[in-house]
Amino acid sequence: MTFRISYKRMRPATHEDSEDSDLLYSKNSSVDESTDIQDDIRPKHTPFAMSEQHSTCATTFKRAKNTRDVDCEPNPLYETFSANASQPLISQLADSRRERVMWIRRLLSAGRDGTVLLRVRQRCSTVWRETHRCSAVVYREHSHDIDTLRMEMLPLPPVKDGSVRIRMLAAPVNPADLNMIQGSYPILCPVPAVGGNEGVGEVLEVGSDVTSLRPGDWVVPVDAGFGTWRTGAVCEEDELMSVPKDISLLGAATVFVNPCTAYRMLSDFQTLAPGCTVIQNASNSAVGQAVVQIAAALGLKTINIIRDRPNCAELVDELQSLGADYVVTEEEVMSSGLHRVFEEVPKPKLGLNCVGGLSGGLVLSNLDYGGTMVTYGGMAKRPLQIPAKSLIFRDVTLKGFWLTQWKRHRKEDKAQLKAMLDAVCDLMRAGQLSTPHCVQTPFQQYTHALRATVQSHRRKHVLIM
Amino acid sequence: MTFRISYKRMRPATHEDSEDSDLLYSKNSSVDESTDIQDDIRPKHTPFAMSEQHSTCATTFKRAKNTRDVDCEPNPLYETFSANASQPLISQLADSRRERVMWIRRLLSAGRDGTVLLRVRQRCSTVWRETHRCSAVVYREHSHDIDTLRMEMLPLPPVKDGSVRIRMLAAPVNPADLNMIQGSYPILCPVPAVGGNEGVGEVLEVGSDVTSLRPGDWVVPVDAGFGTWRTGAVCEEDELMSVPKDISLLGAATVFVNPCTAYRMLSDFQTLAPGCTVIQNASNSAVGQAVVQIAAALGLKTINIIRDRPNCAELVDELQSLGADYVVTEEEVMSSGLHRVFEEVPKPKLGLNCVGGLSGGLVLSNLDYGGTMVTYGGMAKRPLQIPAKSLIFRDVTLKGFWLTQWKRHRKEDKAQLKAMLDAVCDLMRAGQLSTPHCVQTPFQQYTHALRATVQSHRRKHVLIM
Repeated sequence: MTFRISYKRMRPATHEDSEDSDLLYSKNSSVDESTDIQDDIRPKHTPFAMSEQHSTCATTFKRAKNTRDVDCEPNPLYETFSANASQPLISQLADSRRERVMWIRRLLSAGRDGTVLLRVRQRCSTVWRETHRCSAVVYREHSHDIDTLRMEMLPLPPVKDGSVRIRMLAAPVNPADLNMIQGSYPILCPVPAVGGNEGVGEVLEVGSDVTSLRPGDWVVPVDAGFGTWRTGAVCEEDELMSVPKDISLLGAATVFVNPCTAYRMLSDFQTLAPGCTVIQNASNSAVGQAVVQIAAALGLKTINIIRDRPNCAELVDELQSLGADYVVTEEEVMSSGLHRVFEEVPKPKLGLNCVGGLSGGLVLSNLDYGGTMVTYGGMAKRPLQIPAKSLIFRDVTLKGFWLTQWKRHRKEDKAQLKAMLDAVCDLMRAGQLSTPHCVQTPFQQYTHALRATVQSHRRKHVLIM
Repeated sequence: MTFRISYKRMRPATHEDSEDSDLLYSKNSSVDESTDIQDDIRPKHTPFAMSEQHSTCATTFKRAKNTRDVDCEPNPLYETFSANASQPLISQLADSRRERVMWIRRLLSAGRDGTVLLRVRQRCSTVWRETHRCSAVVYREHSHDIDTLRMEMLPLPPVKDGSVRIRMLAAPVNPADLNMIQGSYPILCPVPAVGGNEGVGEVLEVGSDVTSLRPGDWVVPVDAGFGTWRTGAVCEEDELMSVPKDISLLGAATVFVNPCTAYRMLSDFQTLAPGCTVIQNASNSAVGQAVVQIAAALGLKTINIIRDRPNCAELVDELQSLGADYVVTEEEVMSSGLHRVFEEVPKPKLGLNCVGGLSGGLVLSNLDYGGTMVTYGGMAKRPLQIPAKSLIFRDVTLKGFWLTQWKRHRKEDKAQLKAMLDAVCDLMRAGQLSTPHCVQTPFQQYTHALRATVQSHRRKHVLIM
């Protein structure tokens, strides 16, 4: 049941419901005023995929102005009255059957009248806003200054046949999110854009063609650039994947970047049987901790290099409690080597490097013959120094890993994505992979979380919507 | 027809042929003198696989001393009278059938008498020496000083069922040979050792079980450490591979290291269809020139980075005449990049680096997304500087290549070695792969060649035996 509005039948609004409603858009669609309507409803900016939707809307009004007697394409604003969209709205508005009938009448009347006049009570206004708009942390230019980000109200497009409306529940602040805002990440969203690439949402509404998701499901965005620092979103079904609801909210919010990165790196570069060894630096990072735990679950031994620090013993205990077999500081490796370790475990076939510079060299130089070092970060901001001998005579391979690209290459084959997500969630459910220690920050206080992440990557901050 | 000598029947030599022969070993096998014989025939040093053979010989004599009435194992010295060994010897000694009969009688007599007394003419002495001894460039310790190498006379073991006697024809002086002598190569021969790892020889004699080689064949040693700077060798059949005789001698002497390295690197790391691009540094090296030519034969485009030098234009011409598509100096790449080149050819999927340091960085930074840089040398003696971004976001892989190891991994499966050698020799035969410019040096003047190679790797020196 979709109300396609013909401008031929338009008339000024009747205002009959003015006594119990707020005026949200009180413009009618008379020709003289349509230009004003266009200006009024056009978002000042069009971050994250809104531009196309709004452009349709604006075009429709323009067309209405010039060709008032011609049927026009469905307008996103009118489409909010479609069966799909209005049913949940009505359900939320109405407390009883009587009230529901009243609301349906009102909406039908608005549709038949061909106006965008919605005189509704305060409740209606709130629900409408939740359905049609969302709050989002938007950046309008690439900058290192956190203050350039603003919380803005963005319009949401209507749910179409293949699309899904979600409300975001939680979204972490990852270092890559900041790099993207700063413009130093290899993929950038056209500005203005909504920040955030990872997070978990709940499905509120699905289009008629959607098969893999249902209202109530928890979902995570498949690709980077989703803009997860927002309260709600409408997107295509294939932009999302469901995650089980029997893992923690924070676990679900942070499952698809760091733990999956660790899982892939342990799976894809060397055939590692139980008893094999993996060496890594940045062992206390979110990925490092996931590596420790997933490796332990797979029966692998881990040698974990950390930087020396005041609370070193504490950190060693923490990593060992997660399943780390050996935790050594960079200084220890440089001064004494790992001879004692290699009396107990074989030399590692796999090395994971998130630091670069000197620390990357420590991983490389302790690899076994024929080993592979996978670089997934460059925290030291210094290049790796690779002696030719390591490559030639020790047959070491250097690779990089970037989960975003890995996922993009498998966009058409979601089975692999699902298998990975299932495997990681299984580990979480089995208690073999814990949720990283997160600082939960109310969404409105996003600047706190961003500022803290800029200052240090040690604590993961998660925005709670 | 093998003469197995029983010491039970030994008697002093008759000296009946003394009038027309030199005394090579005039000791008889009487018990009192056997110790002297042992000392006499024992080589002063036992480089390259001689020690085991001689040890058998010495043991036999010792046994003869203590257990004079007991049959003993065949002695290598007596085995020189075996049918296999003596026939070519007799052929060389005898000018006519009558003379041949005489020599057979003398040898039979020597065998029947159970003595090692060989009274032969001067001609016999020379041939015996050629058969049983060789000149070799020997190093007795690892040193950077060329003068520590000496030309020495080494005993050769007799040809057994599975072994082969060859005379060396030509052997190059490669930089790796010097590294091995200096003790800085990852594989080292136990000293004392014969220098040289590559070269071509001619089969003179084969054991009865040898199937893949025949007298007259040209052969190259399969593995490093053969010690090719020598006039002759006796080794197992599987230590050698035949090469066609319709390529040049210098081509055959230098085919199994540099051209095969180039061939493998172009074959094993990326799937390169005609029209694809390869970028390399050290383009004027022997491998670099082979890369240019093999790539051209495969329809690949090459971007060849060279160091700026006084005769730069000349070198550019030379490389272009070999088939190089683009020849650019390091300075040009650094100042202007390769944008113009990439307007004409695709970015390279494969980069070959023999220099390291800055030059390796130029190869790396111009690779295509997903490309591979293969390092096979480190001429600049400076490590590669690898930014994490290249590995992570450009998905570049760094590998090393060492033909010696590649061959060792395929020691049991000679088909792959043969296929490679055939492919490279086919290119040589077709005129698509020329023999590198070599300085030919008489074997006795080996110090010239070694000294010149220490000073500069630009010219390849080949010892001619």
